[in-house]
Amino acid sequence: MTDAREDGFATAVREQPPTDAELADIDMWWRAANYLSVGQIFLMDNPLLREPLRPEHIKPRLLGHWGTTPGLNFIYAHLNRVIAARDLDMIYIMGPGHGGPGPVAAAWLEGTYSEVYPEISQDAIGMRRLFTQFSFPGGIPSHVAPETPGSIHEGGELGYSLSHAHGAAFDNPDLIVAAVVGDGEAETGPLATGWHATKFVDPRRDGAVLPILHLNGYKIANPTVLARIDRDELAQLLRGYGYLPYLVEGAEPEQMHRGFAATLDRCLQEIADIQRRARSGGDATRPRWPMIVLASPKGWTGPAEVDGLKVENYWRAHQVPFADARSEAHRTVLEHWMRGYRPEELFDAAGAPVARIRDLHPAGDRRMSANPHANGGPLVRGLDLPDFRDYATPVDQPGVAMAESTRILGGFLRDVMAANMTTFRMFSPDENNSNRLDAVLQTTDRTWNAPTLPTDDHLAIDGRVMEILSEHTCQGWLEGYLLTGRHGLFSCYEAFAHIVDSMFNQHAKWLRTTNRIPWRRPIPSLNYLLTSHVWRQDHNGFSHQDPGFIDHVVNKKSEVIRVYLPPDANTLLSVADHCLRSRQYVNVIVAGKQPQPQYLSMEDAIVHCTKGIGRWEWACTDAGAHPDVVMACAGDVPTMETLAAVDLLGNLFPDLRIRVINVVDLMRLQDDRDHPHGLSDRAFDTLFTADTPVVFAYHGYPWLIHRLTYHRAGHDNFHVRGYLEEGTTTTPFDMCVRNRIDRYHLAIDVIDRVPHLLPAAAHTREHLQNKLIQHHGYIREHGEDPPEIAEWHWPETPSSTRTSQS
Amino acid sequence: MTDAREDGFATAVREQPPTDAELADIDMWWRAANYLSVGQIFLMDNPLLREPLRPEHIKPRLLGHWGTTPGLNFIYAHLNRVIAARDLDMIYIMGPGHGGPGPVAAAWLEGTYSEVYPEISQDAIGMRRLFTQFSFPGGIPSHVAPETPGSIHEGGELGYSLSHAHGAAFDNPDLIVAAVVGDGEAETGPLATGWHATKFVDPRRDGAVLPILHLNGYKIANPTVLARIDRDELAQLLRGYGYLPYLVEGAEPEQMHRGFAATLDRCLQEIADIQRRARSGGDATRPRWPMIVLASPKGWTGPAEVDGLKVENYWRAHQVPFADARSEAHRTVLEHWMRGYRPEELFDAAGAPVARIRDLHPAGDRRMSANPHANGGPLVRGLDLPDFRDYATPVDQPGVAMAESTRILGGFLRDVMAANMTTFRMFSPDENNSNRLDAVLQTTDRTWNAPTLPTDDHLAIDGRVMEILSEHTCQGWLEGYLLTGRHGLFSCYEAFAHIVDSMFNQHAKWLRTTNRIPWRRPIPSLNYLLTSHVWRQDHNGFSHQDPGFIDHVVNKKSEVIRVYLPPDANTLLSVADHCLRSRQYVNVIVAGKQPQPQYLSMEDAIVHCTKGIGRWEWACTDAGAHPDVVMACAGDVPTMETLAAVDLLGNLFPDLRIRVINVVDLMRLQDDRDHPHGLSDRAFDTLFTADTPVVFAYHGYPWLIHRLTYHRAGHDNFHVRGYLEEGTTTTPFDMCVRNRIDRYHLAIDVIDRVPHLLPAAAHTREHLQNKLIQHHGYIREHGEDPPEIAEWHWPETPSSTRTSQS
Repeated sequence: MTDAREDGFATAVREQPPTDAELADIDMWWRAANYLSVGQIFLMDNPLLREPLRPEHIKPRLLGHWGTTPGLNFIYAHLNRVIAARDLDMIYIMGPGHGGPGPVAAAWLEGTYSEVYPEISQDAIGMRRLFTQFSFPGGIPSHVAPETPGSIHEGGELGYSLSHAHGAAFDNPDLIVAAVVGDGEAETGPLATGWHATKFVDPRRDGAVLPILHLNGYKIANPTVLARIDRDELAQLLRGYGYLPYLVEGAEPEQMHRGFAATLDRCLQEIADIQRRARSGGDATRPRWPMIVLASPKGWTGPAEVDGLKVENYWRAHQVPFADARSEAHRTVLEHWMRGYRPEELFDAAGAPVARIRDLHPAGDRRMSANPHANGGPLVRGLDLPDFRDYATPVDQPGVAMAESTRILGGFLRDVMAANMTTFRMFSPDENNSNRLDAVLQTTDRTWNAPTLPTDDHLAIDGRVMEILSEHTCQGWLEGYLLTGRHGLFSCYEAFAHIVDSMFNQHAKWLRTTNRIPWRRPIPSLNYLLTSHVWRQDHNGFSHQDPGFIDHVVNKKSEVIRVYLPPDANTLLSVADHCLRSRQYVNVIVAGKQPQPQYLSMEDAIVHCTKGIGRWEWACTDAGAHPDVVMACAGDVPTMETLAAVDLLGNLFPDLRIRVINVVDLMRLQDDRDHPHGLSDRAFDTLFTADTPVVFAYHGYPWLIHRLTYHRAGHDNFHVRGYLEEGTTTTPFDMCVRNRIDRYHLAIDVIDRVPHLLPAAAHTREHLQNKLIQHHGYIREHGEDPPEIAEWHWPETPSSTRTSQS
Repeated sequence: MTDAREDGFATAVREQPPTDAELADIDMWWRAANYLSVGQIFLMDNPLLREPLRPEHIKPRLLGHWGTTPGLNFIYAHLNRVIAARDLDMIYIMGPGHGGPGPVAAAWLEGTYSEVYPEISQDAIGMRRLFTQFSFPGGIPSHVAPETPGSIHEGGELGYSLSHAHGAAFDNPDLIVAAVVGDGEAETGPLATGWHATKFVDPRRDGAVLPILHLNGYKIANPTVLARIDRDELAQLLRGYGYLPYLVEGAEPEQMHRGFAATLDRCLQEIADIQRRARSGGDATRPRWPMIVLASPKGWTGPAEVDGLKVENYWRAHQVPFADARSEAHRTVLEHWMRGYRPEELFDAAGAPVARIRDLHPAGDRRMSANPHANGGPLVRGLDLPDFRDYATPVDQPGVAMAESTRILGGFLRDVMAANMTTFRMFSPDENNSNRLDAVLQTTDRTWNAPTLPTDDHLAIDGRVMEILSEHTCQGWLEGYLLTGRHGLFSCYEAFAHIVDSMFNQHAKWLRTTNRIPWRRPIPSLNYLLTSHVWRQDHNGFSHQDPGFIDHVVNKKSEVIRVYLPPDANTLLSVADHCLRSRQYVNVIVAGKQPQPQYLSMEDAIVHCTKGIGRWEWACTDAGAHPDVVMACAGDVPTMETLAAVDLLGNLFPDLRIRVINVVDLMRLQDDRDHPHGLSDRAFDTLFTADTPVVFAYHGYPWLIHRLTYHRAGHDNFHVRGYLEEGTTTTPFDMCVRNRIDRYHLAIDVIDRVPHLLPAAAHTREHLQNKLIQHHGYIREHGEDPPEIAEWHWPETPSSTRTSQS
């Protein structure tokens, strides 16, 4: 039964109210979780308080967050009741991840903790270790980190709980994701738009997310906006987001248990009704999903005051409510507080949870701390991938035919999608077609659960291309999807990948940490396709020109990051296939969408990508001998400009011995001691030599190449061109010229490095500079690149003389 | 008069409906702006269509966005009417900044464009140039970029229009900021939370923001969420955000003119009423601010169909509606389209706007394209700064006394605030007190216009410390505040500065571009204080440990970025004073909040900060001679560890000649050809030598130091320690050890570099390693750092023997 309230919230009254015994059980479980949470924050000994608390039982350095924890525990206890009652497949995402003691306590009560960490046994010894290790050197972090069983969401950085929750729910029709949104987190941008995810949920195919907005009232030092606006305004906001909000508000445990139990039952019934209606062939159009607002005191059940200052229901409860816990005064407060949970009722003689507690939570995989979806690795099924070689663009002669690389990739992705219609999704901030991946729409539609018009184009409730104009939401959905063991691709304008810099950081840290946790298994990699890149945003201008995401990525541990710069379509196909098969990485692929010369046949592309770096013999003029100069390139536009420079130089200086090296896998440049993909010094020197000038045209900010090659014998010979942060709305070639990475500047760079080898070097240099001036004049007059530039391709040669690249 | 509608929107009916003549004028202005917008996208000649359109009149390469432009122009025309009628001080922020042709057209119609760019005259020649230059090499960008008079918001990256608008309105009581929010932009996170800014507006002291949500219906390729949810749900959402939303919807121009004019009048009257009530001593508590939802077709007034495909009111109108405009078929469409605006009525024989158009828009500074607030530079008044030396912490002996550096800064900021109560604000995502800047609350409160409780702490409607848990909103507000000529400081956890990486990018690009626009004048710098930094997030753990924002920042043009790492309180004061006085930079200050040794007296601090880098003679053991080793440091924790290492080494090897160099201004390491703060090679070599091993302890990722010193003669001698992406919840010292930047590793690094100079080097090395193992054991047992570590300070010396640093 549901009542509408005047303020716009709904409240639930349960037709069969819970019995007193039921409520007492829930309360007991809650007390146990709270007791264990306080213990983790404060104690390193005497865990069961079987003797009076002495200073040495208390940690010398108190680190942790109490404020949000009792609320998280309260919800956990109630979720356990309904999981058991309804046999639900449920995971729990805690937006306020600093409440780490809560889920650790719960996992210990459920036995999961001792299963994955046997030394933390379910007895007094284990409890002491459980307490001591928390926020302790050599122990576990203070947040809901990867170390916490049942977690796919650390919550260290706020804002992504709803996006992660929805990502987990997609294509998991039987899963319910309970997602606590802290009222602090609710102020972040990513969370504020995260509510709109319901327009992308198919109630037939996807699981359900049950958001629980926790009005805890305070952040670190301030009240929260959503706790302080009038309740009717809050109800309007949540209804405007598309939900039916239920309110449970108060501080008195018994009343709160009754209210929350009834509301939870009501919400789960509504979810079940929605799904039944949709799945029985009925209407799958977006329902008004239920959600809960839980308004409870910050630091609930903690000390009301300490030293005469308000703590409970106040910001002072946020972290550790009192610092000097070894002092007699504070120690007394602590002991009184902990004994208030009546530990003697909660734990048996051995220190294990009593039977009544063990009986409350569900068993086996139904325990939220042991739910398989919260440890996606073991669930992963590899993608059924078509043979990427079947999508090859024909390349009879290198650098002659033109193609749009990402459009060719689109054909492959279309069939990847077709073969994996429950385990693969694509994500993009409204750029899927702009990035020329629209072939995928031949197989599936864009996900859209809002009204459509007859003129709409490939929108469907069960579409699998997820487009919302929020990089945060795309990334958050994809992370949630990956963390629960599925696969995906995020295509994004290169410059705006920076919008999710910080989300990338957190995911990379998660991967790095899980590499050290044996019971976590590898999950599919997070694949970025950065197209509409810096060199091809000449139309949108300076704000859209930024190749720095690569720099940001390489700051993270080399064990989890990979960067690929395929120069053409066939290498892009090979790289994409590799990335989709990989696990536990963040793969960044940068590739353009504009028509461009195609260099390598599929056979050559596979060889080249397998090596990751290599000489392009067909472009070299060193005939296998020691070169006069090495011209290296990484990225599609730098590759084209390099080859055009080689073409120029070849005509100007037929005797100059140029070696051309192309880099697909950027990490190959690093030392093999620094990165698993790194080249040995010997292999590096064989390619680049230790004594020859290297003119390196690189896609991004140039000094990254210096960084990666810093320890190489020949690094002083490296002259790197890249993006110099010069840009505006102009032509593609002018973008190169402004940043001195164009064919003429590269050719001049070569001349400047080996003038002694070149006849009439100064004269030729001047000639090239004059050409630049001529082209500049043409561009200014015509508004487009000169045909000589725009139509350049590598000189055609009789196919019989072509050699394969090595 | 206001009517409530069933769907929750309000509509306005004007008591005195506009006359037909008024409407005709507005429509004429709109047609002129639309004509000029289309002309900019397509034409390079024949601007007035005084001859039939020929292929060569059309640009060969068409770049621009038509879809949003007519809506922006429609609003501009109507705003002009009310500005003139009510003598309003108004600026216009266009979220969909890709509609660049619109405001350029408006500025030209208003005469501003010709004033700042005299060659773009108000005649046929100027119009031809106006058209040609748009999205053209050597011309202007396609977005509402800095080149556009009247713009403080490029809109190239979506999401910040409302935050910028509010930042502009703060402390500008007479200003009204009309802010168009695109329905694409509305899906971004930053925008979705940006609506909550009203909880931070004081209607007495601040100006008003009038949001206009433009339901254009489509993004690049998809419909928008807010255009497709039911209107009543949208009304709930906007009411939930705290607004009174008015809806104007349709496509028929006359009806739309009538509706929008009435609604605009109504909203401005409400704003005036709100402000009058609040300012006449009445109630300043948050009102329900009015806003407008304008639902109009994308590509309004453009071709309905092209080649049989729907264009108007569809996503195909987003950019250039047809590509092959030189073809006869498309040229005919274009000519028909442009002539439909009846240019012969709009422009006189010379090509200037006719009098009726010139009479519609306001004059002088009231023109939105010429409003002084949209060019903050000339408005800037320098801060009235107290003498920072008065806040010095006493340092009799270097490295002995302890203090919390940011807390001391807080005292200075308190008085900066007190002296600049209308031109300075501080911004923080709920971290002001956590960052120990709470002294500022002695002068002002935290801004808060929502209900308060008696227990609340320093909240007030007219507070000047702005705290919302959204880094995006803080940054956006500050940017808006700076761009309109005021001053501010953003304090943020270091790791979470990455959340605004992309916003920083855009602001840095704006600054760099405005440096090249003579009529733009320098604005106050954007000052970041990154505290709670990587080395002092041992309690929150790995997710909070990331020093990469510095790396991100130094990718941008050196002319606009500065990075400071003051090692103690007095240097922090000196740096902060310098930054608050500076213009046109982004200043990043990294400084810790924990108790730490204080090294420099204020006198020494000023000398040191003025140089930006220098020898600390009191710590050196090279006695002015050529050193055996240089120990360099940048950042407070690396400085402390370096000095502790020097202390260790001094005891172990009394004869070792160590030079200690501290770096405050990171850009000093660069070459003076690369950065205005760079040192000459000679000065650099004098400090570091060209041949001595340098052990450099750096706050962030180590290779940045390699990058900055790459071209120096001695760079191969640099051995850099920094953050290695190792972290968790642990102790401060253990954080250093994990990343090998602690005193023992640094001392070992020295030993490894000059073993031949050291007696018993191998033995001593082993001793130091054993100490590390001992400390590790202590930390694991006690959960805190050994007293020997935690209480370390620089050895006390008789003050008479102390020399000043040089």
